[in-house]
Amino acid sequence: MMANKASLGNYFEDLTVGLKIDHAVSRTLTEGDAALYLALTASRYPLFCNTEFARELGFIREPIHDLLVFHIVFGKSVPDISLNAVANLGYADVRFGEAVYPGDTISAETEVIGRRESSGGDTGIVWVQTFGYNQHKREVIRFIRWVLVNKANSANETGPAIVPPTPNEVATADFYIPEDLKLSAFDGRVTGGKWFWDDYEVGERIDHVEGMAIEEAEHQMAARLYQNTARAHFNAHALKDSRFGTRVVYGGHVISIARALSFNGLENIVRILAFNGGTHSNPTVTGDTIFAYTDILEKINLNRVDCGALRLRLIATKNLDPYTENIEFKVPDEKGRERYHPNVVLDLDYTVLIPKKVRSEQ
Amino acid sequence: MMANKASLGNYFEDLTVGLKIDHAVSRTLTEGDAALYLALTASRYPLFCNTEFARELGFIREPIHDLLVFHIVFGKSVPDISLNAVANLGYADVRFGEAVYPGDTISAETEVIGRRESSGGDTGIVWVQTFGYNQHKREVIRFIRWVLVNKANSANETGPAIVPPTPNEVATADFYIPEDLKLSAFDGRVTGGKWFWDDYEVGERIDHVEGMAIEEAEHQMAARLYQNTARAHFNAHALKDSRFGTRVVYGGHVISIARALSFNGLENIVRILAFNGGTHSNPTVTGDTIFAYTDILEKINLNRVDCGALRLRLIATKNLDPYTENIEFKVPDEKGRERYHPNVVLDLDYTVLIPKKVRSEQ
Amino acid sequence: MMANKASLGNYFEDLTVGLKIDHAVSRTLTEGDAALYLALTASRYPLFCNTEFARELGFIREPIHDLLVFHIVFGKSVPDISLNAVANLGYADVRFGEAVYPGDTISAETEVIGRRESSGGDTGIVWVQTFGYNQHKREVIRFIRWVLVNKANSANETGPAIVPPTPNEVATADFYIPEDLKLSAFDGRVTGGKWFWDDYEVGERIDHVEGMAIEEAEHQMAARLYQNTARAHFNAHALKDSRFGTRVVYGGHVISIARALSFNGLENIVRILAFNGGTHSNPTVTGDTIFAYTDILEKINLNRVDCGALRLRLIATKNLDPYTENIEFKVPDEKGRERYHPNVVLDLDYTVLIPKKVRSEQ
Repeated sequence: MMANKASLGNYFEDLTVGLKIDHAVSRTLTEGDAALYLALTASRYPLFCNTEFARELGFIREPIHDLLVFHIVFGKSVPDISLNAVANLGYADVRFGEAVYPGDTISAETEVIGRRESSGGDTGIVWVQTFGYNQHKREVIRFIRWVLVNKANSANETGPAIVPPTPNEVATADFYIPEDLKLSAFDGRVTGGKWFWDDYEVGERIDHVEGMAIEEAEHQMAARLYQNTARAHFNAHALKDSRFGTRVVYGGHVISIARALSFNGLENIVRILAFNGGTHSNPTVTGDTIFAYTDILEKINLNRVDCGALRLRLIATKNLDPYTENIEFKVPDEKGRERYHPNVVLDLDYTVLIPKKVRSEQ
Repeated sequence: MMANKASLGNYFEDLTVGLKIDHAVSRTLTEGDAALYLALTASRYPLFCNTEFARELGFIREPIHDLLVFHIVFGKSVPDISLNAVANLGYADVRFGEAVYPGDTISAETEVIGRRESSGGDTGIVWVQTFGYNQHKREVIRFIRWVLVNKANSANETGPAIVPPTPNEVATADFYIPEDLKLSAFDGRVTGGKWFWDDYEVGERIDHVEGMAIEEAEHQMAARLYQNTARAHFNAHALKDSRFGTRVVYGGHVISIARALSFNGLENIVRILAFNGGTHSNPTVTGDTIFAYTDILEKINLNRVDCGALRLRLIATKNLDPYTENIEFKVPDEKGRERYHPNVVLDLDYTVLIPKKVRSEQ
Repeated sequence: MMANKASLGNYFEDLTVGLKIDHAVSRTLTEGDAALYLALTASRYPLFCNTEFARELGFIREPIHDLLVFHIVFGKSVPDISLNAVANLGYADVRFGEAVYPGDTISAETEVIGRRESSGGDTGIVWVQTFGYNQHKREVIRFIRWVLVNKANSANETGPAIVPPTPNEVATADFYIPEDLKLSAFDGRVTGGKWFWDDYEVGERIDHVEGMAIEEAEHQMAARLYQNTARAHFNAHALKDSRFGTRVVYGGHVISIARALSFNGLENIVRILAFNGGTHSNPTVTGDTIFAYTDILEKINLNRVDCGALRLRLIATKNLDPYTENIEFKVPDEKGRERYHPNVVLDLDYTVLIPKKVRSEQ
């Protein structure tokens, strides 16, 4: 009998440092994907849904949403990197590059940059750096992530640990800012936003007020749109015997929902420049309602008269509204160690581009 | 500590007569939106999904569905007008204007035209007129609606009541009929409809036979597609303590479902000209099955040889099939007042354009 | 009182042999439909989602997925053929024709080619042949199917049985292979597939490993996208008293899900050439998880240096993973007759085009 031709994905043993993988199924993004992203997330940032507004800012037309590009590239990497993952542990050095437009075709490549076997011998942490490109081979995104991956066989020897550096932030010099950006034309009436770079203060908190429930059909459609094949989102039959007993929402979908909720109070953000780091602190499942708030961590001067950057901390909770209910962000566990409150599902440190209040032509 | 930068929406006090609001997030509609509308509603009118048919009738290509345009403009008005609404009370003078095509960008403006504080002092009715425009500033829709809105503080003085006129019907002179409309080419084989303006009789009822269930994921996706932020559709966590204990389907989605069901028996309708009035008589929630029937109220002669208008009453019910089960449309409540039967969810008085049986070139 | 103008569909009596029906609502397919198909099924075949890859193979751009074309044409036929069907009994001679591109408008016609009243006198089997065309009247698909249809009145005489031939397979000479197909440029790095026509062996089984749950909102959206009006998928209110007590997933959606799962191990398939036969052996309902495996039935030499055909048997199960759990494909019923195991939902015999390992220019 022949071996089964279906792939079971890579295990810890397969993911050796230096390995480079061209991911399969590079994919053209369309207006259809953009509409679905909007229907699944409630995104309202006009740059991504208003062709006139986008053109006035120097874009060719409305680009594909930053996070949709992230999810597509992430999804491409799943069959090769995280099909046998136990958990996504973190992100670093996530840089958003050239704008992607409907009709562009996105490909993805990953290099394994580190790994360390766990003390138990049956799993290990793998660090990878993934790059997304458009059809002109221009970089549209890059990110480092690390995942806990099963070993195929705990008896296998896997060699010494190689732990790569993971920067705590994306350097200002590494931000991608489109050359043609024309923020002099930025019209706050289109966004509805009253607040600009100048108006935000470090330490300030913005409660985004609204809540958004997630249904099984929604997160499944999202993950399928991203061609993310991770079984945790789909295989209800197998998952009934799993740790959570049910399907788990793709963590990236929670980022999208929280980001969409955060429009209220941060309407004038133009693009995401970077994720400095992020943690999916607890799982989200069907029926959970997501809430979000943002802390202003840092105001970054880009030496431009038209815009600056804000470093933000976006916290998402489930079934607990931080605007109306008390929440301890971190709580001690039974051993007294500080843990995320079980209703906190996302802790994302990211940086955005936002116009200044008074702008002149660049 | 700074005030929260997120908007909580306007209250009765804020919505003074004469106030004009440019709504945020004007938005480009695409083929993606059109496909989602179809997948969420089961619309089959060929004008909106058949580019060849649309061109033969004098359109540039298949336009965006009339009701999708309505929902988009309505959705734009929600964050400014009805975020703190207790209930949508009614519609009047809803006029459908120029066709919207994929690629067009729709903006919305509202003027407050009346308000009256409730006797209890904690709410009031606000009348608004909303206009939708395309990127050429041509009117694509206008409507009056009135909503019961919370006061920020019941102690606030709000001045005298101003109640605007709300016409019982849209006048024939106000119907928008495209100049280039070529109904001589109308092909009933494409619609499958055997019946034309001549065939319908005042007093006639059409039972639309089919039923359509609505799921939580579906109405959420619809409302998000319309960028309608009303909490009643999304915030499951807060709504578990609300009057209905659960999320409520956006009333406009029920109109769309009922309208799509009504294709069976009214296949040759070209466009909606007007809503004369409408009531969301009871809430619809997940799992409810919607049924519909139409009464022919009036045959309107447009002084054209190719088409006429029909004034219709579209009634939608939930979990009760008016084709196979008896239904008292209105029933007395405990005080003997006539109320809608609790299974009646929509009572819509609207006017449509439909070809005559024998047509010649205009 | 006038007769109800809504159609109740055709009954066995109406569907006389030789009857030809032009189905209503011919429809333009768009990028929006393509994106929804992907989000609803998790399809990953690059031909349908990668415009660069498609062009390199000689296509104008990425075509509409083969099965989406099938579902659209099937859906068009439902209001005329199977609205009063008790069951879909089978398919034969399903041939996939010219590629359909976004912007093409698809129409459908059906001829009744046979019928036989059941012994009970209240139903009968109707055989129909349906053709799908694009706007240039080029054939994009054709298929024979047979359905068990209710009689309007069991007392009606319906004449002699006419049972048409239904071929057990589509002949090689009837496969549609695009003239411009350039498989010399086929790049297995895009599909991620390691296996070509040469690598598969008759008798080989491919377990596709993954499972995919189906939600109510998903199959409803799929069937609505296809404008398939069969009540079994939508009318929850009526169906609570039906045989299964609930809505049933459109069988074609199960084909799509199983086909998408089968990408893993069959990545290099270019197009479906034919369905030789197919059975929806058991119903699928909301929450069911679908699994799939493929048996290689036959290797067909097309007398081309660049590609061959594979005849495949695609089996889908629900809530039972054939990769990890034992399954008897057929089991005896209480009378000892061989029946499909109750967890087997699809048995599809189909033929696909797949490149050879070593190719040269045609």
